[in-house]
Amino acid sequence: MSTASVSDASPTPFAVPAGKTALLVIDMQRDFLLPGGFGESLGNDVGMLRGVIEPLMTLIAAARESGVPVIHTREGHLPDLSDCPPAKLNRGAPSQRIGDPGAFGRILIRGEYGHDIIDELAPVEGETIIDKPGKGAFYATELTEVLEAAGITTLLVTGVTTEVCVHTSVREANDRGYECLVVSDCVGSYFPEFQRVGLDMIAAQGGIFGWTAPSESVITALRQGQGQERSLRSDQGQERSLRSDQGQERSLRSDQSDQSDEFVPVPSSR
Amino acid sequence: MSTASVSDASPTPFAVPAGKTALLVIDMQRDFLLPGGFGESLGNDVGMLRGVIEPLMTLIAAARESGVPVIHTREGHLPDLSDCPPAKLNRGAPSQRIGDPGAFGRILIRGEYGHDIIDELAPVEGETIIDKPGKGAFYATELTEVLEAAGITTLLVTGVTTEVCVHTSVREANDRGYECLVVSDCVGSYFPEFQRVGLDMIAAQGGIFGWTAPSESVITALRQGQGQERSLRSDQGQERSLRSDQGQERSLRSDQSDQSDEFVPVPSSR
Repeated sequence: MSTASVSDASPTPFAVPAGKTALLVIDMQRDFLLPGGFGESLGNDVGMLRGVIEPLMTLIAAARESGVPVIHTREGHLPDLSDCPPAKLNRGAPSQRIGDPGAFGRILIRGEYGHDIIDELAPVEGETIIDKPGKGAFYATELTEVLEAAGITTLLVTGVTTEVCVHTSVREANDRGYECLVVSDCVGSYFPEFQRVGLDMIAAQGGIFGWTAPSESVITALRQGQGQERSLRSDQGQERSLRSDQGQERSLRSDQSDQSDEFVPVPSSR
Repeated sequence: MSTASVSDASPTPFAVPAGKTALLVIDMQRDFLLPGGFGESLGNDVGMLRGVIEPLMTLIAAARESGVPVIHTREGHLPDLSDCPPAKLNRGAPSQRIGDPGAFGRILIRGEYGHDIIDELAPVEGETIIDKPGKGAFYATELTEVLEAAGITTLLVTGVTTEVCVHTSVREANDRGYECLVVSDCVGSYFPEFQRVGLDMIAAQGGIFGWTAPSESVITALRQGQGQERSLRSDQGQERSLRSDQGQERSLRSDQSDQSDEFVPVPSSR
């Protein structure tokens, strides 16, 4: 198996193993990103988050092209709020609480327009969407099972907001033994200091939670890995024989013959 | 039931409900805090953490006096490292990895001298100790079960380090519906900026992860709650009748008749 490297990652170069890496896109939802939506109604400047959209569109396209599965998350709750702890429900300002009517439907409720992912980053057929009730992508979700089934060991983490849902998810992933790289221009915060220090906290003390790098370097590594894999494949014939040590991945592939040769699908949780 | 309040907590006053509040003391271990230990050997100034010891001694004493259970955590691994993910093991500098010999025994291994809690804050009989393999106190531990059995809804969070294990544990607790107050002078970081911004991140956006307050204000609230409870008790006779809505707590209490009247014990995990 080929392993590309993000050479200028902090604190050290970061390995991106082909077939074992996924791109995690956290909570790029209309409620947080659209002007006039829930996030803005709380007094936040959504422009601080919207700068993430363009580099993330490019990174997602590169991941798809390189066969790196893209996993999207959405924070939200069931319409009856049975999965929303009272502590979370009561934390909001009156009339701006989860489940209240907002500009784009009931705030952070699954199935509402505002809860879904922005059009620019809409998932494509076959991509996993994880619906999460908390800030973390692992708590009370099927993410661990999805990653294990696909043989994923390494996560490229993007989305919003840097210090809240991105950080919480990276911390959970780190405790579970995943290697995480946070893509610095593809994560956003309403607060410049939290953005800067949040990234610093990830890579401090030798990478106590993981690594950071800009999307340009990550895309270079994805293309490098893709190039290595193509070159290996032309030397060795079938890709399948190259991946003979990856039972789980192979069995997934054999179920999904309509996917392109490069694409390692992750089961959808829709 | 009486509920005291930390009046100057940020972002708003914080309720400390009697019988439902616990003090969580994160990772006050010799490996992190002793001069010459693992933390210092990584180039950190342990003096940055040691300032926490004295206020935390005072807060723990006040909690014990007020009947607030004290729960201690320790980060560490089994001697065979079977609970240490390769990603964590390999992250360390060569010769300073988990399980390597250190000044106070094998680094972060359960049962070693360095892994245990510093003498000044040693748990007393009946207090719970949670051994955790990760940064978070909930992942792969029995903490949820311990808190549920004791009817705890509210956590006063202390320990080290602010941006690593304290933050990760608060994020986990928050997703699980616990109300958390981080005691600002009883948490410590090797890095002043992470200390300051880490506390800011907790209380931002209306308390997105919880609340912060200095120990002096928390101790005032604990004593106020204790006073209210005493006064209620003298009005109403038996404490037990006062707590008739707390089935779980009452059954715990009836098992532990050797404890003082004020003390709500949490089962020990030793």
